[in-house]
Amino acid sequence: MDAITRIEHALSGAVASAELPGSPPRLAQALRHAVFPRGARLRPRLCLAVAAACGDDRPAVSTAAAAAIELLHCASLVHDDLPCFDDAATRRGRPSVHAAFGVPLAVLAGDALIVLAFQQLAQGAARAPQRLAGLVGIVGGAVGVPFGIVAGQAWECESAVDLSRYQQQKTGALFAAAGMAGAAAAGSPAEPWRRLGECLGEAYQVADDLRDAVADAEEIGKPTGQDALHNRPNAVALLGLEGAMARLEQFAAAAADAIPPCPGAEPMRALILQEVRRLMPRQLAVQAA
Amino acid sequence: MDAITRIEHALSGAVASAELPGSPPRLAQALRHAVFPRGARLRPRLCLAVAAACGDDRPAVSTAAAAAIELLHCASLVHDDLPCFDDAATRRGRPSVHAAFGVPLAVLAGDALIVLAFQQLAQGAARAPQRLAGLVGIVGGAVGVPFGIVAGQAWECESAVDLSRYQQQKTGALFAAAGMAGAAAAGSPAEPWRRLGECLGEAYQVADDLRDAVADAEEIGKPTGQDALHNRPNAVALLGLEGAMARLEQFAAAAADAIPPCPGAEPMRALILQEVRRLMPRQLAVQAA
Repeated sequence: MDAITRIEHALSGAVASAELPGSPPRLAQALRHAVFPRGARLRPRLCLAVAAACGDDRPAVSTAAAAAIELLHCASLVHDDLPCFDDAATRRGRPSVHAAFGVPLAVLAGDALIVLAFQQLAQGAARAPQRLAGLVGIVGGAVGVPFGIVAGQAWECESAVDLSRYQQQKTGALFAAAGMAGAAAAGSPAEPWRRLGECLGEAYQVADDLRDAVADAEEIGKPTGQDALHNRPNAVALLGLEGAMARLEQFAAAAADAIPPCPGAEPMRALILQEVRRLMPRQLAVQAA
Repeated sequence: MDAITRIEHALSGAVASAELPGSPPRLAQALRHAVFPRGARLRPRLCLAVAAACGDDRPAVSTAAAAAIELLHCASLVHDDLPCFDDAATRRGRPSVHAAFGVPLAVLAGDALIVLAFQQLAQGAARAPQRLAGLVGIVGGAVGVPFGIVAGQAWECESAVDLSRYQQQKTGALFAAAGMAGAAAAGSPAEPWRRLGECLGEAYQVADDLRDAVADAEEIGKPTGQDALHNRPNAVALLGLEGAMARLEQFAAAAADAIPPCPGAEPMRALILQEVRRLMPRQLAVQAA
């Protein structure tokens, strides 16, 4: 089974568990809306790519780790889109969860996705219990306090913010965890894989800024031009278009260089460079090709 | 170390982990506000009482389970108090988290507490990995979908609600999980302990309705008379004061009868009857004594 099939299958199973008789039906619909149809699934694909590079001797564990990472990413999108944060009415070309189901169900859907992520890990690792505590630690650290997504988002509520810390916690942490969880799921040391995910997280952040600046809303499924509109700090404002493109290529190269020695290093290197190209706005990707 | 000391010590450690340098300080304050000063800590005390009745051979695991249960309870209070749900300005005699820190930090504090709960479990069970998957399953099931607290709360967003299912998911599930997690943490089968927690959850629900009807706000730390004011279904409206008191005593007796055969059954029976008396509004407890 290829990576994306494993990921979608696991996510389907997770979401279906919310649809049993006796479960509140609108919450179940909101969860499905939050997880499907799929976005790029960058993080779980990174997780499985690293697991494969490490031998992937327990596919049930790595698949569960990939699904958990994506469920947490979806949870963060649902809560970030809330009126009290980004107040985003659209996501992936459709109404955001709170726009479609209301704020209460959006709060609950995010909560449920967080819980579901840890349940997935526990189910997937039932036959490899020695790996579970490490995985919960890696994944929990990437989303919670003091240094995960929730902490990153909370910097928006502080009077003084360190921008690189904000971005590292809000975006980098889950990318780093995706790679590390892939290694841990395969029984390998996780720490050597941290830098790869961090570099990809930085590349993703720059690519996101580029797409916000030059793509159209149809291409990326949400309104563009938001950074300039809200005067948010971003790579295009800081470096200009060409500078931001150069920065993206630097992070891609750094990511490729951060792959630890392993049997699957070469195909992974090629995959990473290809993925970063996919992150670029179409117009710039054509120019760069 | 007595149970409450173990619980407070574990919760202190969990909250302190959010206060490391580099963590957003207002979020860390909001977490502390959500967890301290303590409420009755009913659920974690139940967890440790059951662990003790089952031999408690791994106190690090049972303490972590108790702390996780309480962190999840606190998370549910923070999110339930939000303006989009109960819009409660006070809790435990102080401003609720959103009243003190704003809605964004209240959403994030709830999220962070959920993650922290699973991290606690993983840390506590690091040396007893065979017990971790079961504990995550029990605890996750009690708070997530399809049948946990989040599902229970989501029934408030449905047009048709089964009241007993709503209460079972919103209140009963975590009480049941508290007992079951105590058993699982001690390496014992969890299922025989489900009924005890369910009965205590039902008793708690009736006691809560009684206190809302007859206690004053100072005694319970939040506004009273809310059920009547909002015309919410509740035991006092349904059965009258005396009927509700009788129902509470029935659930207490059922809880005592639900203790599975074990060496510590007798002291546990006494503890349960004493605890239920503590749940009553002062005025009625004096009459019932």
